[in-house]
Parts: sequence; structure tokens; C-alpha cells
Amino acid sequence: MLPEPIRRELTTIAGPEGFLDSPADLLAYSYDATPVYQSAPDGVVFPRSTEEAQAILRFASREGVKIIPRGSGTNLSAGSVPVEGGVVMVLTRMSRVREIDTENLTATVEPGAITGPFQAQVEAMGLFYPPDPGSVAVSTLGGNVATCAGGLRGLKYGVTRDYVLGLEAVLPSGEVIRTGGKAMKDVAGYDLTRLLVGSEGTLAVITEILLKLVPKPAAKRTLLALFPHVTDAARAVSGIIAARIVPATLEFLDQATARVVEDYAHAGLPTDVGAVLLIEQDGAPAAVDADIEEIARVCRTSGASDVRVAATPEEAVGLMTARRAALAALARLRPTIVLEDASVPRSRLADMVQAINTIARKHRLQICTFGHAGDGNLHPSCLTDARDTEEMRRVEEAFAEIFATAVAMGGTITGEHGVGAAKADYLEWKVGAAGIAVMKRLKSAFDPQGILNPGKMFARTSRPRIVVSR
Amino acid sequence: MLPEPIRRELTTIAGPEGFLDSPADLLAYSYDATPVYQSAPDGVVFPRSTEEAQAILRFASREGVKIIPRGSGTNLSAGSVPVEGGVVMVLTRMSRVREIDTENLTATVEPGAITGPFQAQVEAMGLFYPPDPGSVAVSTLGGNVATCAGGLRGLKYGVTRDYVLGLEAVLPSGEVIRTGGKAMKDVAGYDLTRLLVGSEGTLAVITEILLKLVPKPAAKRTLLALFPHVTDAARAVSGIIAARIVPATLEFLDQATARVVEDYAHAGLPTDVGAVLLIEQDGAPAAVDADIEEIARVCRTSGASDVRVAATPEEAVGLMTARRAALAALARLRPTIVLEDASVPRSRLADMVQAINTIARKHRLQICTFGHAGDGNLHPSCLTDARDTEEMRRVEEAFAEIFATAVAMGGTITGEHGVGAAKADYLEWKVGAAGIAVMKRLKSAFDPQGILNPGKMFARTSRPRIVVSR
Repeated sequence: MLPEPIRRELTTIAGPEGFLDSPADLLAYSYDATPVYQSAPDGVVFPRSTEEAQAILRFASREGVKIIPRGSGTNLSAGSVPVEGGVVMVLTRMSRVREIDTENLTATVEPGAITGPFQAQVEAMGLFYPPDPGSVAVSTLGGNVATCAGGLRGLKYGVTRDYVLGLEAVLPSGEVIRTGGKAMKDVAGYDLTRLLVGSEGTLAVITEILLKLVPKPAAKRTLLALFPHVTDAARAVSGIIAARIVPATLEFLDQATARVVEDYAHAGLPTDVGAVLLIEQDGAPAAVDADIEEIARVCRTSGASDVRVAATPEEAVGLMTARRAALAALARLRPTIVLEDASVPRSRLADMVQAINTIARKHRLQICTFGHAGDGNLHPSCLTDARDTEEMRRVEEAFAEIFATAVAMGGTITGEHGVGAAKADYLEWKVGAAGIAVMKRLKSAFDPQGILNPGKMFARTSRPRIVVSR
Repeated sequence: MLPEPIRRELTTIAGPEGFLDSPADLLAYSYDATPVYQSAPDGVVFPRSTEEAQAILRFASREGVKIIPRGSGTNLSAGSVPVEGGVVMVLTRMSRVREIDTENLTATVEPGAITGPFQAQVEAMGLFYPPDPGSVAVSTLGGNVATCAGGLRGLKYGVTRDYVLGLEAVLPSGEVIRTGGKAMKDVAGYDLTRLLVGSEGTLAVITEILLKLVPKPAAKRTLLALFPHVTDAARAVSGIIAARIVPATLEFLDQATARVVEDYAHAGLPTDVGAVLLIEQDGAPAAVDADIEEIARVCRTSGASDVRVAATPEEAVGLMTARRAALAALARLRPTIVLEDASVPRSRLADMVQAINTIARKHRLQICTFGHAGDGNLHPSCLTDARDTEEMRRVEEAFAEIFATAVAMGGTITGEHGVGAAKADYLEWKVGAAGIAVMKRLKSAFDPQGILNPGKMFARTSRPRIVVSR
């Protein structure tokens, strides 16, 4: 329970509906979408404006109160769990789309705006906001920016970072900084915009976002290809790139995922399929037709047992179901699903999938892998039970090996979910001791008292590096 | 003259040909492409490897020697001038293209590799590295990364930042950090990659660059449109964007520039033309044809007096001459040309050009404006004489007003040239006092002793803000 003067001040700043600390409320804000992690905050505050966010942070700095910013709480690395207590600052009352500027192709939004409805709004104007994390229906744009959210269109269109032109952010001191702007080129000073993108609420609280939009592609077509083995699918991915085609979406399901999805969604996948690629291309109609034809040809010559090109938009949606249903289909099999996010260079896709399978067998675990084949961003997902502490220990060991393998292949411990609390122990494997030291100094440059989202990004102690034998 | 022990140590590290300090050598490294700025270094050192760069920086840290990293010295903001003396570290002996990875669409290069030949090398393989600063024939990729170089293709393809996947960099302490990698998605920790891009050699010395490549567009077409007045050209730019077309290149020349270019290059421009747009589109052939047709239509309905679509690649090169020749044509008119870089949101293009003309008249100066209309990045260029101190004072006053106007329009003091020494006084106008304070703390986090490229980015004192009446 927070001391009464702190409760009173936060209530004064955010209004009586803007501060919560009943046991039910503290429970509701004790977790995000990450399994296992849970920790109750001491209070929950909902600023309505930049000024209120400033007042809260100014007060928190003075009193040494920890602040954990969050949006919808769809984080998968425990990035929005108040692991050290403190006050959760929820940005969902700042949810307006302030402007869509059709002449400069920009949008100005508040951090609590939900990504999916925003995308629909700009698409209705013939424009397009490409980043589409799996949580798009509920996640906030502020959360997307704080984690540099990716999604299915990363290969061709990039990730959230590539669409953030400017930010308004409140420093822990309560000071406001404004970065970037509508001028498409801007090199005035250090790139604070991209430093804040992906900083997971540890440097500043984002209160306004200026996003870049692009014209909506005129056409889109979808293709599903089934392969006897993951190496065939990987050969098709390489063949598509070698043909100098960059598809909008190039998704992958392994055999285990495909079986589970078929059982759940009845998408018409043979149960003996070794790997599935789901491919979309968009752009000018004639170019899309030519690309899809060439992609189908490459899939067939790479050994696809079946290639299905959607003839209608409805059929395309049907094919996409196989991919979109993956998480839901997997999640119903066992009480807990640990959805991970190791990424490798595209050329190592088959090696990585096979390494994951070997690691799963070694630790007697069921790991299904799906993800974004085009950018090497895989989601090995372990079906388990959080109540089984012995099995959870094996899950942790297996994922440590998976992260070490990804790094050894030139990849990374997290492609799009973030470090949060769940992967803080592994960050040094990717960035090295010198990298960690620089990042900690950056953290201090923004947040000398360490009041913003404590317990995230950095481990308390170094974790011994696993040696991967290859 | 450096103390003998320092000369000896630098010679030992870089070899006898790797250290210079004759008067002629010090003169040769006393300037870059920025007019007026000149200051001799105390020595010049040329590392051949990351290890040598480390040894130099470790030694410099210990002895408190200032290090000014540079490539070919094409900087236009005095970013590579040793304004406080010290040792210039030239990276041109590290100039190899180490790898072009056609499967992952990446290139690994040393910082001294020259941009133009690198582009030609990847294009011969059917790939494409889009950033193309005006200095492309001589500038280094390391310099491009250090300044986040832009160029003619920014509107559609973005700038250098958008193509840097990872870096190896040496901190002032001599420690090496490695950022990013070939995994296309990577959110492991703070985005040190993009923080170093555009940091102008003030945070670390870049020793290896991992670049993203894209497939080379199959077709390209070029169009030249002449307009009676700048507002007609601006209407055409808006109309093209409103038609949901993003051209690869959308360049602008004002009346004064067009006249000078015609006199120099005989490109066939009428001398009474008010503004010129030079537009390129690339992509799949049918889509390019459709876009060029629509762009020509929009130009005509916006009031173009003439629209010329190049029928052949040779004719396209001819049309491009008008734009490519602008700087050379202007430079021969008077002894000094001050090429500036104020940028505004695309929608303010005509307002900004007119404001520049008003400011030029007020200060009795000849300012010609050309630049990248598509991304609002203008290059107002003042024809003057550096020996005329009274006129140079007026040049400085005029550009201060131009920067203030750009910022007031939602733009920036530099779109692609960087802050360097020349614009340090104006940075606060764009990023505010809180922004400057954060950036100074970031600088200290990397370079606590302040030995890397001193006298750049930050002004010694705050400059009074000009109030622009509009």
C-alpha cells in the first residue's frame, strides 16, 4: 500500500477515476501476456494528458516512486510486469488519433490508440501503416513503439522503427522532449527518436507519436505452399530471394504446428506435411501477378508437394487462417504456452528449425515452431504447464540453448518481443559486456535515479554463456 | 607539433606510412567541403584495422589526445574539420567490401569503402543500395553512416539509417562494440546501431558496417516538368502524393538555379521557367509506365508549361543533367558557395522557397534554391565571397533566419548534411534545451573525456532564438 500522501497526490493529478489501488485492480495490473511472471504494483495511474504524465513523473522523481509505463499489456517478455512493485502508468486514456495528414503522409497519435482500428482508419483513406504485430487488435501504438513491434510484413516493409518520424516523450524528471518531425529528412543531433523506439519504457514515457504512412498497395494476392521437409521450404525461401522478389509476407509453420492448426482450424492441410509457407505479395496488380506466378514456380521446383494460389480475397483469408490460428491452436493443447522469439539470418532458417527440434528432444519438451521465414524471425513455442516446476526448469534450459544457438548463427535473442524481465539474463550473450556497459550508461543518462520500469533490460548478474556445439 | 612520444607511438601503431605531420599534410587535413572553416590538426593517422583503431583510441584516451575521425572529407557542416586541433583519424585505408551476401541481401564493408563503386558492384549483381548523397563518387560509406547521408532517393527509399543493419565500432576507451546483425528483426537492447548512425564521429569510431540491400528495380523512367511559378510546382508535388504515387526521385530547381544551370549545361530549359521538377520512378515496368503517365497528367493539370518524358535511357541521363549540374553551375559564378540544408514538411515547399527569396532580398544576397522536393529537403545556396567579411555577416544572418523559418514550419536545421561545427549554434532551436541536455549526457555516456571530434554538435553557448514573423 502506498503512503497516503502519495495516493492523494496521484489522485489529485489524474482525477478520482485516474488512480486505482483496490486489491482487484492491483491484481489486474500484476501481469501481462507473459506466462509465469506476476507481481502486484502498489497503485495504477491513468494520465489523460502530457501535462498529467509530467506531473506524475515530476512527483515520482521527487518521492523516488517507481513508474512502470504500459499500454494494453500484450508484452511477451514481461516488459510491463511491475516486477519490483511501484506504480503502473497506463496510457490508455490518451488514445486519440490527433491528425492524419494526407499531404505529408503522416499521422499524429496518442500512445494509447489501438493499432488495428488505426490501420483500418488510414486504409479507408487509401493509406497504409504496415507494422502488424500479432496483437494488433488490442495492442497500443505506444506499446508498439516502446517495443519496436514487428509482425508479418517485416521483410518488405520493415518494423515499427521504420515508421516513427518523431516523438513527444516525458523524461523521468518531468521534462518534455520533442524529437523528429514531419520533415522526412532530419539529422539535427543524435537520433533520440530511434533510441526511444524499442527502449521498453525504461528511458522515457512516450506521450505523442508521429508516424509515417505510405500509399495502400492496389493489389494483394496470397499463396500457400506445402513441403515434405523444412529444408525444402527453406530452399524455396532462398529461391524467392534469389529471384529478386521480396514478398510482403513470407510465413512458416513447421510440421508440429501445421498438424495442430489443421486439427483446430480445418484449413485443409494434409497431416503429413513437413512444412508450410504462406506467402503474400502486394503492389501494382500486374507486378503482383508476375511475382505470385514466379513464387509458385520457385516453390514447385524447390519440392513443394502442393501450391495453392487464392483465387478470391475470401480464399486468401481462408489460407491466412492457417497462420493466424497458430497461437490459438497451440495454446489450447496444454495449460501454458511459452512463445519465444529467437531470430537468425534468413539463410539459417532450416538449420535453426532443426536445432530447435534437437534441443526439444534433448529436454523432452514439445516445441512447435512457426514465424516470419522471410526475416528469419522464428517463434519456437513450448507447450508446457507452469505448475510443473521440474518441466519449467527444462523449458528454461531449452530456451537458453535456443538463444545461444541463435546468437551463434549470427542471430539474436529477440526479434520483436523485447528483452523485458524474461530475457534480461541473456542480453549480454548478444551485445557483449561492452555493449551492456554502454546501454547502462545510456539508461543513467535518461533515468539517473532508475525509477522508470526497473528490473527490465539488464540482469542483476551475468549469466554464464552456454557453449553451443554445432 | 605533437610531443615526440605521441608521434612515435602513433607511428608504431599505424606504421611509417600511417602517420603524417608535415606542414603540407596538416594543411591537407585542415578542411573539408565546408567554406570558411579551416583549422590544422596536430597529426594525421591512418589505421589499417579495427585493432589499430583500438590501439590509437586506447592511447589517445590515456594521453588525452583529441581524435577527429573522417573519411573523404566531403562534409558540408565542418563536421570533419579539426576545429580544436588534435589528430585526424582517416579511415580510407580500411576500404574493403568484405562480403556481399546474396542470400541474406546484406553487404559487409569497411568504413573507407567509396559509396559509388560499391553501388555499382551490387547493381552488377542485380541488387541495389539506394542512398545516394551528391558526393557519392568520392564519399565513404563510413562517412555516409556517420552523417546519415540522404540524397535524391529519400522519398521512396529512405536514407542511410534505413540501410544500416549493424555496426562494429570502437569506443573512445578502445573497447569494441558490435551492434545488430544479419537477423532482419532485432530488438535486443537499446538501438545502438541507429544512435551511432548520424552521430558524426562524436560517440565512437565505426570500423565495420553491415548494410541492407534490396533487389534492383527492373525499370526506371524519367520526366522533366517546367512550371511558370514555384506554387505550380508545389501543387504538382501535392497532386502526385494525393494520387498515392511515391516517386523514386522528385527534385526541384527554382528559377534562379534553372537559369544558371541552362547557361552552364545547355539542358534546353527556357530561361523564363519559374520552377523545374525532375521526377524518376522505378519498379516493375508496367507499374512504372502507369505512374509516369499519371505523374505527367498531374503536372499538366497543375499548370506545367512543358512536360518531357525521356524516351531512352540516354535522354533520361540528359534530363538528370539539369539537376546533377546544379552545384557545379552555381559554384562557378562567385568565389564561395554556401550550400545549406534546411528542411520542411513537404506541404510547406512553396512557402519555404518564397520565404528564402524574401530573406535573400532583405539581406541583399543571391540565394538559389534546389533540392529534394519529395521530402521537403531544400538546399538554399548562397553565392558569395568568403573574403568579404561584411557580406559574410549578412550570409550568416540570412541563414539564421532561414533555419528559424524552417523550424517554425515544422522542419529542421539540417536534413542530411549534419550539425558539425557550422550548425552547432542552431541545434537548440530544433531540439530545445531539454533535448540538448539529454544529448550531452549521451555524449558523456560514450565519451566521458570528450576526446572524440570535439567542438562539434554542441554550441559553447546558447544562441538567442530569432523570432520569425510570418
